Amino acid sequence: MKVSFAERYEGVTGSAIRQIFALLADPEIISFAGGNPAPVTFPSEALSEIAARLIREEGASILQYGGTAGVPGYLAQVKGLFEAEGLHPADNELISLTGSSQGIDLMTKAVVNPGDVVLVESPTFLGALQTFKLYQAELQGVQMDEQGMVMEDLEEKLKTYHPKFVYTIPTFQNPTGRTLPADRRRKMVELCSKYGCLILEDDPYASLRYAGQAQPSIKSFDTEGIVVKLLSFSKTISPGLRVGAAYATPEIIHKFNLGKQGQDVHTANLNQAMVAEYIKSGAYPEGIARNIAYYRGKMETMVEMAKTVFPAGTQVVAPEGGMFLWVELPEGCDATAAFGKAVENKVAYVPGTHFYYDGGHNNTMRLNFTMVDEERIRAGMKRLGKLFG
Amino acid sequence: MKVSFAERYEGVTGSAIRQIFALLADPEIISFAGGNPAPVTFPSEALSEIAARLIREEGASILQYGGTAGVPGYLAQVKGLFEAEGLHPADNELISLTGSSQGIDLMTKAVVNPGDVVLVESPTFLGALQTFKLYQAELQGVQMDEQGMVMEDLEEKLKTYHPKFVYTIPTFQNPTGRTLPADRRRKMVELCSKYGCLILEDDPYASLRYAGQAQPSIKSFDTEGIVVKLLSFSKTISPGLRVGAAYATPEIIHKFNLGKQGQDVHTANLNQAMVAEYIKSGAYPEGIARNIAYYRGKMETMVEMAKTVFPAGTQVVAPEGGMFLWVELPEGCDATAAFGKAVENKVAYVPGTHFYYDGGHNNTMRLNFTMVDEERIRAGMKRLGKLFG
Repeated sequence: MKVSFAERYEGVTGSAIRQIFALLADPEIISFAGGNPAPVTFPSEALSEIAARLIREEGASILQYGGTAGVPGYLAQVKGLFEAEGLHPADNELISLTGSSQGIDLMTKAVVNPGDVVLVESPTFLGALQTFKLYQAELQGVQMDEQGMVMEDLEEKLKTYHPKFVYTIPTFQNPTGRTLPADRRRKMVELCSKYGCLILEDDPYASLRYAGQAQPSIKSFDTEGIVVKLLSFSKTISPGLRVGAAYATPEIIHKFNLGKQGQDVHTANLNQAMVAEYIKSGAYPEGIARNIAYYRGKMETMVEMAKTVFPAGTQVVAPEGGMFLWVELPEGCDATAAFGKAVENKVAYVPGTHFYYDGGHNNTMRLNFTMVDEERIRAGMKRLGKLFG
Repeated sequence: MKVSFAERYEGVTGSAIRQIFALLADPEIISFAGGNPAPVTFPSEALSEIAARLIREEGASILQYGGTAGVPGYLAQVKGLFEAEGLHPADNELISLTGSSQGIDLMTKAVVNPGDVVLVESPTFLGALQTFKLYQAELQGVQMDEQGMVMEDLEEKLKTYHPKFVYTIPTFQNPTGRTLPADRRRKMVELCSKYGCLILEDDPYASLRYAGQAQPSIKSFDTEGIVVKLLSFSKTISPGLRVGAAYATPEIIHKFNLGKQGQDVHTANLNQAMVAEYIKSGAYPEGIARNIAYYRGKMETMVEMAKTVFPAGTQVVAPEGGMFLWVELPEGCDATAAFGKAVENKVAYVPGTHFYYDGGHNNTMRLNFTMVDEERIRAGMKRLGKLFG
């Protein structure tokens, strides 16, 4: 039988990045294409002990159906982390998520009718673009400079398109590594308030800061409940556990709850309780400090190499944290076309074009440094340099 | 700011059952309102040991991002279970789910545009109704008799409404406990094939059979790939782990995969691997046998009591398995109106009206027997009988 699929799937073909990953099984390839944290940073021993204890001692509740809002002990830890940032969520302003990605889905589900506009950083996280497309949102990009979203362009787009929300990764953005400074964060809230637009603040990298000063959360400037803030443990504890959270007004959280009931009923209790127990043990800040120490040298090595191997006119800005280095080659260099050649030469990256909702920008690429040791970073960057030299 | 929510939320107010659960904190209330498996059936010791070992020995992959399709070792076990039913899924015909409920969402997402018709058993599972509403499906009910969906009415509805799919729980249905016999299963596939309609076969209770003969899966009659079959471990291992699977054509599974990428990226690796290791250990059939032994007596006690406590003219059919007993009181008895009085008298059930997409049927109720011991089943049924006597 010929199946007639829903209109929302028109033009949705899956992530180009996943197709790239399939090419990278060859261990000789030095891959800067990934976006994964390094496995050595996972607190396996602690989580192994915690999981065993939780199931043994609390199996009757851990293995039973749970509430859609989340495991109370987990939500208490989430609240504590937000409070440490100077935020003050009430109990009914929080919900646990099956990975913070689910928050991107639930936000879009809550407010977007087909044809409604969502503003995105240009470029932005690929997974979010796919989610927005599946809700048939119309995407419009906001220009970025070295400090992230340009506020003049944001205001222009707010005026022109009356978007439902702005999606932003304000700290060590994926893919650019850029961080929005505090004054722009404040301005973003002012502008969105003025034009009646919500903000989805997705901030999974903020804890991984290798240099500079922490910036206040966009949510900290929110006096009207227009900011929905996501919390992720994927880059600080483990992505495979699929545990995250959202903080928003009770009205919005209620819609998230209804939308989540229909998807997965609730996030697995064990996974929430494991993260809660790990944080409660006091090991979390120390774990993050270890991750930072492990990643900082890699980032510095990659930046140092990037400044020497690429042709004159290449733009590289050292990120202050996160997992990615963004490279803008001189106009005329084509990182999209060169990808096949790169793989032949045993080095890989993600062509930057994939991160733009409207394509183009073939002179850009995203390089990940978390999964490769420093010696291989040097070797891989040399191979890359030859490709564009 | 006044938030304008998406049209899909119009009329979606949340599960009435969840509001009922909130009333039942009082331990003196004998509650037949639940739908949970009994915690004593959870294999806590085995899962505790498995979880600890998996994280300790395979933390680097278990705690890392995984593939959307699922953990290979888990999919291999899922395949084995389907093969034991005489089904033969290819590798690209399977996907792991964050609870089989996610399959109801992904199916609707894959094929339903707003206004498209979905046929449901009348009555049916509440959670599915909410999911369908969030995709703005138009619901139409198919009549049931004591053997489940009535094929004449199904054909009539297929002809009249050109539905996208039929949603069915063929074995020990929620809420009625009824089981569709093999000849109707075959007929359902023939009719749906004739009228170009897909079937979503949701079969979470089938393993819990206390009497009678196992019926072949609807999927076993499917020669054209029109049946999407869901697999759940929520009633046989643990609902809190949120692990399930779907089996369908590669074309449909591809759409599930894209739709799932946008929701939770993938199901937590640990939870899939725990279920896989548990099945691999050989303990699964024995665990199910223990559950059956534990539930059978409760079911028999409840049926026996139901036949004596309710007024003449009450219809009660003993289910051959599952978790629920369905009661149709004589016309004029109002189980919806009596609910408050029942709670005052320290007994609870779910008024049957909540399971009908179009309401009504106030003379019906659903009784769950898995969470209450036999003595309390007797006491609770007596309290119920007085209410309607």
